[in-house]
Amino acid sequence: MTGWLVVAGLGPGDAGLITPEVTLALAQATDVIGYFPYVARVMPRDGLTLHASDNRVELDRAALALDLVRAGGRVVVVSSGDPGVFAMASAVFEALEARPADHALDIRILPGITAMLAAAARAGAPLGHDFCAINLSDNLKPWELVEARVRAAAKADFAMAFYNPRSASRPHQFVRTLEVLLEECGAARLITFARAVTTPDEHIHTVTLGEATPEMADMRTVVIVGNSATRRVGRFVYTPRRAE
Amino acid sequence: MTGWLVVAGLGPGDAGLITPEVTLALAQATDVIGYFPYVARVMPRDGLTLHASDNRVELDRAALALDLVRAGGRVVVVSSGDPGVFAMASAVFEALEARPADHALDIRILPGITAMLAAAARAGAPLGHDFCAINLSDNLKPWELVEARVRAAAKADFAMAFYNPRSASRPHQFVRTLEVLLEECGAARLITFARAVTTPDEHIHTVTLGEATPEMADMRTVVIVGNSATRRVGRFVYTPRRAE
Repeated sequence: MTGWLVVAGLGPGDAGLITPEVTLALAQATDVIGYFPYVARVMPRDGLTLHASDNRVELDRAALALDLVRAGGRVVVVSSGDPGVFAMASAVFEALEARPADHALDIRILPGITAMLAAAARAGAPLGHDFCAINLSDNLKPWELVEARVRAAAKADFAMAFYNPRSASRPHQFVRTLEVLLEECGAARLITFARAVTTPDEHIHTVTLGEATPEMADMRTVVIVGNSATRRVGRFVYTPRRAE
Repeated sequence: MTGWLVVAGLGPGDAGLITPEVTLALAQATDVIGYFPYVARVMPRDGLTLHASDNRVELDRAALALDLVRAGGRVVVVSSGDPGVFAMASAVFEALEARPADHALDIRILPGITAMLAAAARAGAPLGHDFCAINLSDNLKPWELVEARVRAAAKADFAMAFYNPRSASRPHQFVRTLEVLLEECGAARLITFARAVTTPDEHIHTVTLGEATPEMADMRTVVIVGNSATRRVGRFVYTPRRAE
């Protein structure tokens, strides 16, 4: 049996956002590997082993996946959203880098609907012009770099999407992010907090930076900040295609 | 009959990348509106009117969509990729802004797999760390703004995805973009040209900025530039999750 590895994005939560090619890969898999809330989204069946693990063991998961493929497994590593956006794909390549003998394995990355695009769609079209995606977690990079990127993006008038804005163990970073944004963008700039998009817990609201407080975000929230032209139309928020 | 408007993303080309919720909306629609190559991807059937139009008439399309919804139509405006990324969603809200009486209409944006995520997946994981998406077309913004954003993104060490890099009518902009990138990022930086991703015409190749030439891109190409840590592993390109 020839094994293969697929790194697949399950989208933000709603089954209606899982692509048919990901559904097909899951139907053919012998093993599914991932963070436990994502693995819980895969329907158990005979012949399929589910390997759920805790957060922050990405490299262990990637190594297990490669081991199973070498043994002939048809393995799907699952991420929420898109596997290439702050998710498992980079971890798999990091593990692969250390294992030259595995470079010829059959490996495919299957894209998914990443949280910022689902959140933007629910809010309207706040990412309708040039934009940046920034992971606010400083687990894997120094906070100074994060802050410098936020400032550079604001100065260049990008719209911005922030992943992992805030967790119990690092509440201060998002406080500081809001300060930097207020400094660079002013109090009238629109900011959208999109929590648990497309799930039963979904909550989306847009305020100005002057009204925003750190408590509006948690780890299930993606935060979108408009550019200088972003505005409301009816119940929506959008960024015009045109810029001066 | 109560009309509704859906602005839907068809993904980059492969039917396996169209989300089930978009497929459902198309099955319920009375009218589909869009640029002709995208409308051509929708299966004709009884009871469905296809309204295909040429490029650069986004606001006319949006106005037609709103008119049809007011008359009770179930209307899907189609974009390739994601409708909120350099596509029809912003144009629809721009049209809506001028028509306050239509603000209460039933309008939903359905996300799709945008080209950069499909391209990144095929190449490996070049957008695995903070990144920007920039539309290189200067049809709707001054070129100076585009160039300033490219430079700011490079200086802040973002990975970058460029949409609409080059067309017959504006070949010079991408020449200049490559010059700016070479200046800011150096000749060894990796750049991926992904043409017609997930279609039969797909062609993806990665070179260094020193090797890149403007002719490697056209209007069907999305271009991805790595950050300073982006590297090859086997046949793939990836950007590590970690940064110094």
